Amino acid sequence: MRVDPTTKYKPFPPIALPDRRWPSATITQPPIWASVDLRDGNQALVEPMGIERKARLYNALVAMGFKEIEIGFPAASQTDFDFARYLIEHDMVPEDVTLQVLVQAREPLIRRTFEALEGCKRAVVHVYNSTSTLQRRVVFGMDRPGIIDIARQGAELIHRLADETDTEIVYQYSPESFTGTELDFAVEIVEAVMDVYQPTPDKRLIVNLPSTVEMATPNVYADQIEWFCRHVKNRDSLIISVHPHNDRGTGIAATELALMAGAQRVEGTLFGNGERTGNVDLVTLALNMFTQGIDPGLDCSNMPELVRMSEYCTRLPIHPRHPYAGELVFTAFSGSHQDAINKGLRALRQSNSGVWEVPYLPIDPTDVGRTYEAVIRINSQSGKGGVAHILERDHALQMPRTLQVEFSGVVQHITDESEGEVTAKQLWDIFEGEYLAQHPGDMALKEYRTVPDTHASDVRVLDAVLSVSGQERKISGRGNGPLDAFVDALRQDLGMALEVVNYSEHALGVGANAQAYAYVEMKAEGHAPMYGVGRHTNIVQASLNAILSSVNRVRRLNAAGSSGGARSTQKVKEDATATTTAGAAE
Amino acid sequence: MRVDPTTKYKPFPPIALPDRRWPSATITQPPIWASVDLRDGNQALVEPMGIERKARLYNALVAMGFKEIEIGFPAASQTDFDFARYLIEHDMVPEDVTLQVLVQAREPLIRRTFEALEGCKRAVVHVYNSTSTLQRRVVFGMDRPGIIDIARQGAELIHRLADETDTEIVYQYSPESFTGTELDFAVEIVEAVMDVYQPTPDKRLIVNLPSTVEMATPNVYADQIEWFCRHVKNRDSLIISVHPHNDRGTGIAATELALMAGAQRVEGTLFGNGERTGNVDLVTLALNMFTQGIDPGLDCSNMPELVRMSEYCTRLPIHPRHPYAGELVFTAFSGSHQDAINKGLRALRQSNSGVWEVPYLPIDPTDVGRTYEAVIRINSQSGKGGVAHILERDHALQMPRTLQVEFSGVVQHITDESEGEVTAKQLWDIFEGEYLAQHPGDMALKEYRTVPDTHASDVRVLDAVLSVSGQERKISGRGNGPLDAFVDALRQDLGMALEVVNYSEHALGVGANAQAYAYVEMKAEGHAPMYGVGRHTNIVQASLNAILSSVNRVRRLNAAGSSGGARSTQKVKEDATATTTAGAAE
Repeated sequence: MRVDPTTKYKPFPPIALPDRRWPSATITQPPIWASVDLRDGNQALVEPMGIERKARLYNALVAMGFKEIEIGFPAASQTDFDFARYLIEHDMVPEDVTLQVLVQAREPLIRRTFEALEGCKRAVVHVYNSTSTLQRRVVFGMDRPGIIDIARQGAELIHRLADETDTEIVYQYSPESFTGTELDFAVEIVEAVMDVYQPTPDKRLIVNLPSTVEMATPNVYADQIEWFCRHVKNRDSLIISVHPHNDRGTGIAATELALMAGAQRVEGTLFGNGERTGNVDLVTLALNMFTQGIDPGLDCSNMPELVRMSEYCTRLPIHPRHPYAGELVFTAFSGSHQDAINKGLRALRQSNSGVWEVPYLPIDPTDVGRTYEAVIRINSQSGKGGVAHILERDHALQMPRTLQVEFSGVVQHITDESEGEVTAKQLWDIFEGEYLAQHPGDMALKEYRTVPDTHASDVRVLDAVLSVSGQERKISGRGNGPLDAFVDALRQDLGMALEVVNYSEHALGVGANAQAYAYVEMKAEGHAPMYGVGRHTNIVQASLNAILSSVNRVRRLNAAGSSGGARSTQKVKEDATATTTAGAAE
Repeated sequence: MRVDPTTKYKPFPPIALPDRRWPSATITQPPIWASVDLRDGNQALVEPMGIERKARLYNALVAMGFKEIEIGFPAASQTDFDFARYLIEHDMVPEDVTLQVLVQAREPLIRRTFEALEGCKRAVVHVYNSTSTLQRRVVFGMDRPGIIDIARQGAELIHRLADETDTEIVYQYSPESFTGTELDFAVEIVEAVMDVYQPTPDKRLIVNLPSTVEMATPNVYADQIEWFCRHVKNRDSLIISVHPHNDRGTGIAATELALMAGAQRVEGTLFGNGERTGNVDLVTLALNMFTQGIDPGLDCSNMPELVRMSEYCTRLPIHPRHPYAGELVFTAFSGSHQDAINKGLRALRQSNSGVWEVPYLPIDPTDVGRTYEAVIRINSQSGKGGVAHILERDHALQMPRTLQVEFSGVVQHITDESEGEVTAKQLWDIFEGEYLAQHPGDMALKEYRTVPDTHASDVRVLDAVLSVSGQERKISGRGNGPLDAFVDALRQDLGMALEVVNYSEHALGVGANAQAYAYVEMKAEGHAPMYGVGRHTNIVQASLNAILSSVNRVRRLNAAGSSGGARSTQKVKEDATATTTAGAAE
């Protein structure tokens, strides 16, 4: 750093609250949610919203379940004024939704605000003035009593106008820049406002304590909220609201700790749009509660649509790593993560318990309208788990574990070279190319028949016709079954030691035309064991194809080795070991 | 929500630690920083880095001041292995920097890892295995002793290989998925590893306690860390490291509270790249400390370059609202914010105290290589403060407060219509068009002279020649000075009641050719007071120009009114009131 912070910046002084109670609390119910997307969010946009975008966002907020929506600052902006009129005159406010408007504690602005509300059934009139030590000094040049006068006079006028209008007015007061305000002064000014409004437990005053600028670690905000709640008079006549910003990247945490400290209401925005680093993100807060078994009362089940709507209205992107919403948050590239997710999903299916418990996935993606499709993506950091999951999902392959290991080595070798991601389609192409396709010089099975050996009743003879580079080749072998006999035939024909190490097979679909997949791991002389895969409606022929697939792969390797050519299969052997563990955890 | 979370998700159980101490602690010094950008960050990329991007990121990390850098998982990825060799063979590791490599607790992988380190002076060998209840059950199918065996055997082999190599090995162990692990088991497995490594206060073991998945509010992680620190044996032989992820958007908070709870080392990444929602963001953590007067020991002074480098290497964007780094975090669109920032910056200049205290700006933008240029941008939510700041900064105008109010109304009217942002250039164009430019039909001053009145010695007579639509017009008036006399002359000529309400003037630059700006607020009959602005090297003529500017604006309004034409100046009167408060706070 070129600048010495020890002289330029002062640490935030700790709050004297040694018997704080919030650290032992837990959140057990959602707060009252108040959206300030259309006000705090809007005022921070490079291109503030016009009526069309505002209406779209407003409708989305109502559909999600918001009951309190701050729609603007009608006295300060003609657009905000017009939007208030638009909602009221088009009867767009449901019975259980309360509009909220912000206004400074100044007479002409308050009067104009009431004009904007004409004909509205019920509204929160949210008046504020700035109370911090710094703003008192450099912005207002006023002492404490002067600042209290501003708040009191504003409240008095609102109280008077509330009596004259048919709109039911809910009172809200914010000591703006609360986090920079001495706590005793915050209590003093709020109590002065309470003296005007005379709130009761039946008609509460909303006292909003904003973290206008995040100035300290989030526990300090919780201390401030608890201190305030414990010192203010007539606590049960108040709804304590928080309005956190995110300058230190801890707005969500500050809100959660503040709720533990006694806050009952949260003002914030979808995905944390708002001044500078943003307001607190209500979607993340709601889903954090959701994953703790609390119904947040906000519907985030169609996240892709919420993201689209938000990006359209704000013209700001949602980051790919944004909790619950980002494009990448339900992906796992690392091999060990993919493997664990795969096993966790399987265990969940088997347990049938209904309780979500999957490693690395704190929420079921389907609960927010995402799908498993996107859960796992494959790149060079991927291992067998991800690869196996994709091929099982898309092609119903039940690959044996050692084949998963071998094939993920093939994939990793290809992706290590390209540095890119592999799509599910490409993954299948790699699989097909490696195990199922016929390469030049490969042997293909044209026909076969088996008969019992005339000399030994438990031995069978297999005669087969292979096609190699367009030419037919007849082979014959003996064994205790068709596979055994086919391997014997190949062994004789190729002059190569061959042995079956592993074998499995499964049907794909049902009925007479159902295909079977066979996986055969063969040990050929001079090579590590190597898989072949075969498919056919005839389960025997699927197995024979699998044997040929493995032998063909060995022959390709030998051919490449002797000619010095580089082929992707060359590296299978080394990678097969390494990729059992590809990628890493934490 | 379509899904009932109360049955599908279980709340995280609270930690029994009623006498927790961390809530009363504060952070007073930076932790040991360990970057995992090249490992955890890299493995989560759609396009993992090749050697070139890795080297660029590595060099940036070294330049920032990182002393511990995890460079990969060499046993799992050929690219990571090659990169380790590249750094070592090209002698790219400074004396005071320690490379770190990750490895699972398995023999072939550990051996391969030591191969990757050959020739390296000093390295952290970071071994891990997963210990959570869930992973033990669904991934490993093992009981506690089986999981401990894995960890112990891994440690034993590393301990043995460390004896055989010339590289100085620093030991690190992670019980992966620590946040999902019973705390007593976490202590048990760490103590089993300690029994192998036999750490001492002089040769400490790094015990890394990852929040592999963020599963609860951040205070719970702090409780877990404090619980662990208070229960593990030989605490002073350990360096307690944390490795938080960000699934609930509270990774930074969890880290800060964990540091208060006793953690001494933090693993994370630049800007929070990493699996899913990312690792904890070390840049934000460092700058959070910086703004509390703590030197973090990481150089973030050239943020624009850090952002460019990171976006290049990860191919992921930095969000416009990312703390300290985002494009929008040093902007203020709201009028009251702009006003307060403007006043705060002025108070700071005057105080000369050296301590940073500006409303809404928790850090001096220049400390991270940003400038005031970007601090304030103007849109329809902007008020007088922002407008005044830009014109003072770019054109040295010292506009009187009431002119700021009036002009911001003009700007707001234009921006309300366009919904867009106004650049500094456009702002100047609007100002010039409104106050300085000659419109068709405007009066211009061609020449003037003043002489004392022959009858009264303290009265002056002013004769002036105006040009209106190409025609000359002579006017004459009397007053106690040239301004007074000029207004008198106009009053007679136009038959209009005119009065000067406010007047100010300042020079621009120094010397004979320095220009002067004059601001004159005039009250014309039937109009709210309205400003005119004039400039000239002659300070008297600048004032006369200002008077003409105001009168011309009135005449334009009258003309537009009579012809029914819509002109931006029409709205000046109403807006001038409203925009004293344009935009909002909190």
